[in-house]
Amino acid sequence: MTEPLPSWTAGPVKAAILDFVDRVTRPHSPEYVRPSDRIAVFDNDGTLWCEQPLQVQVFFAQQRLRELADQHPELKSHQPFKAFLEHDLKEIHELGKKGVFAVAFMVHAGMTETEFAETAGTWLASATHPSLRRQFTECVFHPQLELMSYLRDHGFKTFIVSGGGIDFMRVFAEDVYGVPPEQIIGSSVKTRVKASDEHIDLVKLAELGTFDDRDAKVENIGLHIGRRPIFAFGNSDGDLTMLRYTKDGQGPRLALLLHHDDDEREFAYDRAFKLSPLAEALDHAADYGITVVSMKSDWEHVFAEPGLRPPLVTGARDGALAGRSHESGDPCH
Amino acid sequence: MTEPLPSWTAGPVKAAILDFVDRVTRPHSPEYVRPSDRIAVFDNDGTLWCEQPLQVQVFFAQQRLRELADQHPELKSHQPFKAFLEHDLKEIHELGKKGVFAVAFMVHAGMTETEFAETAGTWLASATHPSLRRQFTECVFHPQLELMSYLRDHGFKTFIVSGGGIDFMRVFAEDVYGVPPEQIIGSSVKTRVKASDEHIDLVKLAELGTFDDRDAKVENIGLHIGRRPIFAFGNSDGDLTMLRYTKDGQGPRLALLLHHDDDEREFAYDRAFKLSPLAEALDHAADYGITVVSMKSDWEHVFAEPGLRPPLVTGARDGALAGRSHESGDPCH
Repeated sequence: MTEPLPSWTAGPVKAAILDFVDRVTRPHSPEYVRPSDRIAVFDNDGTLWCEQPLQVQVFFAQQRLRELADQHPELKSHQPFKAFLEHDLKEIHELGKKGVFAVAFMVHAGMTETEFAETAGTWLASATHPSLRRQFTECVFHPQLELMSYLRDHGFKTFIVSGGGIDFMRVFAEDVYGVPPEQIIGSSVKTRVKASDEHIDLVKLAELGTFDDRDAKVENIGLHIGRRPIFAFGNSDGDLTMLRYTKDGQGPRLALLLHHDDDEREFAYDRAFKLSPLAEALDHAADYGITVVSMKSDWEHVFAEPGLRPPLVTGARDGALAGRSHESGDPCH
Repeated sequence: MTEPLPSWTAGPVKAAILDFVDRVTRPHSPEYVRPSDRIAVFDNDGTLWCEQPLQVQVFFAQQRLRELADQHPELKSHQPFKAFLEHDLKEIHELGKKGVFAVAFMVHAGMTETEFAETAGTWLASATHPSLRRQFTECVFHPQLELMSYLRDHGFKTFIVSGGGIDFMRVFAEDVYGVPPEQIIGSSVKTRVKASDEHIDLVKLAELGTFDDRDAKVENIGLHIGRRPIFAFGNSDGDLTMLRYTKDGQGPRLALLLHHDDDEREFAYDRAFKLSPLAEALDHAADYGITVVSMKSDWEHVFAEPGLRPPLVTGARDGALAGRSHESGDPCH
């Protein structure tokens, strides 16, 4: 039998994961959980892929903002747009996560859902990380791909619950993570139906619907999933309510918190990162029964080795995702 | 091979369903749709179960309102509560669907999600329809159970998209329809996280989050599912936008509209029913390519024969639903 989770270093964290999955899935286990209650939730930015120096979606928004600034040059002298256009990281970080995402979401107002997916898919197909020098879709953490796959192989349904834009994640998450659109929860803008005699489309508005962070993550789990997860994985204080909510249910539970402490292979940061600080959750992890994962010590690899890399996102959703659905449809065939 | 959809009468409607499923699922079909895009959406009230003389959830709210009126007798003399307490159908119908559901949702404010699920599960386990003289959970339409099952057997993922309360439906939908909580979309109230040092719960507020009717059904499909369905089934003008949205996508599509024209076996009604009128959708079905289903002509049976009835909901979710998940978890085993 192949060793499970080969990118995870043998040690107490890996052992805790394997033990948990065994306890909830082994037939006749006293802690057996039926498959339909095996709900696992993962944060995205910083948990499944890099969020330094900015969340990936902010790079995408910068590109759109540059297009808008060509038509409306006055944006170049107005904050917060000026900071985005000049890639002024200090100014951008000062806005905090919600402020940054508010701008990132707003710049695509007026697009239909189809136009947005095509635009994002095209951008993701070639955009590269400024210092890691690889495509953003290759900045996903390989141990997490193994873990999600391992959970699904054991009857779990994997969801993403992220502060990032729900429709941005849906463009690549099925292809890259194996998580279909209906299992993505995120921040969203309101939409409205645009109907003519012939056609009906959904158009994105500039108004924020939900900013999916902190308590809102739990409220949105209630809205979208309707049951308490038994497994959760996050990396910042924005995930703390979700991790605690997961741990507080009856029966076996596992809540994991990724600590970015590896400035050789990725980045080392926690409480000082204004776009997504990790302080309270780290300080109180033990009190809440949350397991801290050290990127440096617990991961053999951070990114996929060449040849193990996930397939690239090559375009908008319909083309890119063919044949990659792990959970929807007929997984048995 | 067993005849598919035995409760559906042989004729053009049944033929259209079988032909559609064949075209999108047969390997090498020129109109083949990959499994992860086989999204089917069903309205609930009036499409999957009875909605006469009131939507089932309104009966449930009446029970709660009677408890509240014991503690607050002043409710008995105030509208709209008076109408609910006196079961004054004429007054209730005058409120329209949104007005009625606003009251129905409000009476459970302050409950945690767990308390609500237990209360609703207990009520559903014994509550009976006033004239059909069977449990509400036996007022589901047997041809629809066959159809949902048939679609799932052909790799579809089935969702409910209803004006009814999302958490009310989640109490019985997995057990009765085989649709897990995360595939239920409905109207919802806002919730807030209630956290102590020890525990985290979600509490229902009195404020409406979304009233999932008409255009909002499509906006909520965008939010929860993130792709356009290829199959939709409704029964009222509240479903028209969703049916049109489904039909307007590229490739093969099927949109069905149930007409309640069977006052012997169920009820006959359409444009005059103020809680959920059917007028515009019926008048323009042909213009939009929507297939009208006659309950009288197209259904061999309306309700399940004894012995074919779905299992009863016997309590709150965890106990009631064991072993009935058709789609989540490990469907291959």
